[in-house]
Amino acid sequence: MTTIEIPDGSLFGVDNLPYGVFSTPGTAPRVGVRVGDSVVDLAMALGDDVFAQPTLNAFMAQGYRRWVEVRERITELVSGDVPDAAVHPVDEVRLHLPVEVGDYVDFYASEHHATNLGKLFRPGAPPLMPNWKHLPVGYHGRAGTVILSGTDIVRPCGQRKAPDQDTPTFGESQRLDIEAELGFIVGTGSELGTPVPVDEFGQRVFGVVILNDWSARDIQSWEYVPLGPFLGKSFATSISPWVVPLLALESARVDTPKQDPEPLPYLRETSPWGLDIDLEVELNGQVVSRPPYREMYWSPAQMLAHMTVNGASSRTGDLFASGTISGPERDQRGAFIEITWGGKEPLQVGGEERTFLQDGDEVVLRATAPGAGGGRIGFGEVRTRILPAKGVAK
Amino acid sequence: MTTIEIPDGSLFGVDNLPYGVFSTPGTAPRVGVRVGDSVVDLAMALGDDVFAQPTLNAFMAQGYRRWVEVRERITELVSGDVPDAAVHPVDEVRLHLPVEVGDYVDFYASEHHATNLGKLFRPGAPPLMPNWKHLPVGYHGRAGTVILSGTDIVRPCGQRKAPDQDTPTFGESQRLDIEAELGFIVGTGSELGTPVPVDEFGQRVFGVVILNDWSARDIQSWEYVPLGPFLGKSFATSISPWVVPLLALESARVDTPKQDPEPLPYLRETSPWGLDIDLEVELNGQVVSRPPYREMYWSPAQMLAHMTVNGASSRTGDLFASGTISGPERDQRGAFIEITWGGKEPLQVGGEERTFLQDGDEVVLRATAPGAGGGRIGFGEVRTRILPAKGVAK
Repeated sequence: MTTIEIPDGSLFGVDNLPYGVFSTPGTAPRVGVRVGDSVVDLAMALGDDVFAQPTLNAFMAQGYRRWVEVRERITELVSGDVPDAAVHPVDEVRLHLPVEVGDYVDFYASEHHATNLGKLFRPGAPPLMPNWKHLPVGYHGRAGTVILSGTDIVRPCGQRKAPDQDTPTFGESQRLDIEAELGFIVGTGSELGTPVPVDEFGQRVFGVVILNDWSARDIQSWEYVPLGPFLGKSFATSISPWVVPLLALESARVDTPKQDPEPLPYLRETSPWGLDIDLEVELNGQVVSRPPYREMYWSPAQMLAHMTVNGASSRTGDLFASGTISGPERDQRGAFIEITWGGKEPLQVGGEERTFLQDGDEVVLRATAPGAGGGRIGFGEVRTRILPAKGVAK
Repeated sequence: MTTIEIPDGSLFGVDNLPYGVFSTPGTAPRVGVRVGDSVVDLAMALGDDVFAQPTLNAFMAQGYRRWVEVRERITELVSGDVPDAAVHPVDEVRLHLPVEVGDYVDFYASEHHATNLGKLFRPGAPPLMPNWKHLPVGYHGRAGTVILSGTDIVRPCGQRKAPDQDTPTFGESQRLDIEAELGFIVGTGSELGTPVPVDEFGQRVFGVVILNDWSARDIQSWEYVPLGPFLGKSFATSISPWVVPLLALESARVDTPKQDPEPLPYLRETSPWGLDIDLEVELNGQVVSRPPYREMYWSPAQMLAHMTVNGASSRTGDLFASGTISGPERDQRGAFIEITWGGKEPLQVGGEERTFLQDGDEVVLRATAPGAGGGRIGFGEVRTRILPAKGVAK
């Protein structure tokens, strides 16, 4: 038996206990929980086959009461002795995509981000559209290209048309960008024809990941009118391997910023789900921005209520993301198009100038939140390297 | 043993052989093929467990050569005697959603439709956007709300704002509409980072269904700028139960309309996949429109090549739809917003006036194409009834 050591100041103390899917050489992917620098094999430690599966979906589908019960059992387990064979150093396991994603929806819930993008994409027009303060604007993205932290991104190709060109050309994206976001994973789905009330968020959503919504700005700006972003986004969306349970985020709950005008009744929360989560954007080893999630105008509970208010069903494994997290300051913006103002105000990174991403660049997103123990809990990271475009048909 | 009778003029002759998923009382859903007015149980008739599954996905994933081989075996089988227990009258089986849908993408490939919608949604502006003739415009829809013909639609609720109102209100959609489309089902997926060449369409796409892309125009027009349609579409997308193999559509192939300007190289087909398929829109028993698929500007091969040119992967079961099929004439338009010109030119149906759909209305979409036998082959139908909205939070 082993007693799991938790280093002082660890972001993975017993008030976090995020779930992931891992494997060791020669074994199949299965569910684990992270404690300190260890991963505990839950199928083995709890003797429950729901964890002997390659995704969290079966466990998530068991519902809220079961999530609470399992969290209590894990808390008890890791306070005592755990069978040796169920404990692996985190550096010695391979991590896998933790969920089978159903539908992926991306929102646009930061007022600072929407305002900045409006100014950049539609100069001279009012930056926020008339609908923006009445509903959380969102759109469906490509679920099949949600990938894990550590998976390299091949620079995408596509059609781009510069304002001074008459016709589009085909080639590599010249304006490859990130969007630092959080992703929310639906644990318990809802039936077709039955909207999810805004106050059911806490029972329906299982957990939270860091999400990088990769964006090719030149492809996006040519294609997106009138039906929205498509190929400019669909080549990849990266998520972190550890799913922080919503149950671990009670100490992070804060009010959302004042919503004026008051939203329609279906969007009014009894107890708001603003979240005091700090993000960090690192480019080639240098932190270039610290986006504050607490600045987000719309809460994730409002996103889920809106997404289903027309009767759309939801499924275990559905993923919805916040949209880029940007605060009011330049060094709080969650995308390079905003940080460098469309490329006009380059950053200095490691002695080099950067606007959009170059081949070989490495981007890391991190996030932490206040934990129940008085310290902080971590979400881990989303780490991605940019590879050159492949030669393809022109 | 049974010899399957095929009635004269049947749309389900041996040159069609569409696949579906069916069950009989007390049995599990499994794959069948339709011949005349019969359904042949393929797991039983061919002795192959890939057909003893509740979707076509496992069979589709086996790839093109296998599709050809199985079609040859079925052709042989139904020309001779089939075991009695493997044959069921189509009226006595229950049909199920034939595929597990991966990602769902909806295109916008009819020039007539895009022009009409441009005039209606953006009066005074050029109806076609500058990108429209350079790329097949598309967006991701909600895969989890793809439903089967015969499933009623509950009228959706949501935010709407009339042009003469200052603020949005919540309530039932007053402008519930159809979009008559075809849906293409990917059989063999493609890896992340590897675009599908335009000429691989025939080997990658398994088959075709009729698709009704339900649209709440009032919800859509308030929400869709700048990120595209979301709740105005996500409440339901209906498909027909029989998947017509692409292999049955060789006689339906025609050139696409002349594409001017010439598309970029990755969109140039060696042998175009225009399709001479006739659709029919019936409202409450009266045919109100006959949209001609041969008028579609972009081919489905161009859609697939475009959808993956940025390196996005595709999966078995991915569904992509054509967008509304509209011809140049009023009675060839595939949506009521076009047929009734935004509600200003009502139709007479069964002695009643109709603009958008009312509770209790029933819409049926049908389609046929030239078959290899010199006659026609059928796609079956998508039949849906509109139910009143449920009482929900305002």
